[in-house]
Amino acid sequence: MIKSFQFYYDFVSPYSYLAHKEIKKIEEKFHIKINYMPIFLGGLHKLAAIQAPAFIPLKAKFMIRDCKLLAEKNDIEFKFNSYFPIKSLNLMRGALIAEQQEVSNEYVNIFFDAIWKNNLDLNNIQLIEKLLKKINIPSNKFLKDINNTETKERLKKKTLDAFEKGIFGVPSFYINNKMFFGQDRLQFVLDEAKK
Amino acid sequence: MIKSFQFYYDFVSPYSYLAHKEIKKIEEKFHIKINYMPIFLGGLHKLAAIQAPAFIPLKAKFMIRDCKLLAEKNDIEFKFNSYFPIKSLNLMRGALIAEQQEVSNEYVNIFFDAIWKNNLDLNNIQLIEKLLKKINIPSNKFLKDINNTETKERLKKKTLDAFEKGIFGVPSFYINNKMFFGQDRLQFVLDEAKK
Repeated sequence: MIKSFQFYYDFVSPYSYLAHKEIKKIEEKFHIKINYMPIFLGGLHKLAAIQAPAFIPLKAKFMIRDCKLLAEKNDIEFKFNSYFPIKSLNLMRGALIAEQQEVSNEYVNIFFDAIWKNNLDLNNIQLIEKLLKKINIPSNKFLKDINNTETKERLKKKTLDAFEKGIFGVPSFYINNKMFFGQDRLQFVLDEAKK
Repeated sequence: MIKSFQFYYDFVSPYSYLAHKEIKKIEEKFHIKINYMPIFLGGLHKLAAIQAPAFIPLKAKFMIRDCKLLAEKNDIEFKFNSYFPIKSLNLMRGALIAEQQEVSNEYVNIFFDAIWKNNLDLNNIQLIEKLLKKINIPSNKFLKDINNTETKERLKKKTLDAFEKGIFGVPSFYINNKMFFGQDRLQFVLDEAKK
């Protein structure tokens, strides 16, 4: 038996996708549900005064190869998205709507896969609509809801809450009042979860 | 049998210390000598337009706990240095002199341990002299040599060479024309070394 923990993510982050796939294995193995915490990475980096690795050319170049190696090692289907970095703000707002509609799981799975497995261009609104349809979310209402001031404010608040917990990037994990950063630190998270 | 590889480091970096200790195990296990490549991290970050994690408060806070966990996991004696960040420029220039005098091994071991195991204040010149004496380096000549223009230029050149290979931080490793960043990527380096 292990405790659950919080998983902070943004679809834009390939390391978040890799963490997500590992977390699915953890959920199955330990029969628990991990708390998915959508935040907006762009906003978080701004709060923490951090420049995104994707915008530092040498880091970005290494990241592509590094993600491929990690995916291989962990037996995860992965393709570095050709349209990277995609604009994830609306998709992260959408994650909040999906939570309310209790289709969180389906939503997270389909959009992570769309970007990091199927190499789709999620800057394309028609594609987003198509994916929503696949998981039975009426796209008209959905696209209206993500533009509500209330939704926008909620994502801002969640991002600020994360920052105030010491989180400065994704994927991050939170358990026993401790924050862990990086997909490659999941073992430390599991060690805490067993305490 | 595995190939050797290059290990880029700066004493200022706790993750470089952890990599150094892992590399000592690798050298012993595979009966090889790894190429230690001293560079100046401050200069490298400047070239790559990267802000050092140590100067981003949330990152720095996480780093301390993260290093302790990694040290524990890999059974490495470690104490986060109270005087961090120390000024490593002279020590890295010194690494070049130590190479010439063929006392590289001793030099690297004693200064990494001084900072990351024994919690010494290496901003203190008397302490540096004491450590040099321990490994039979006459400190007067040594301290003069590290201030030679030629030494300064050599470290600059080595740092620039690293940058031109795609290196943007330490520890980094280079093998088969590929660069790997991070102590936690040593397994990927070993996979390459077996090719």
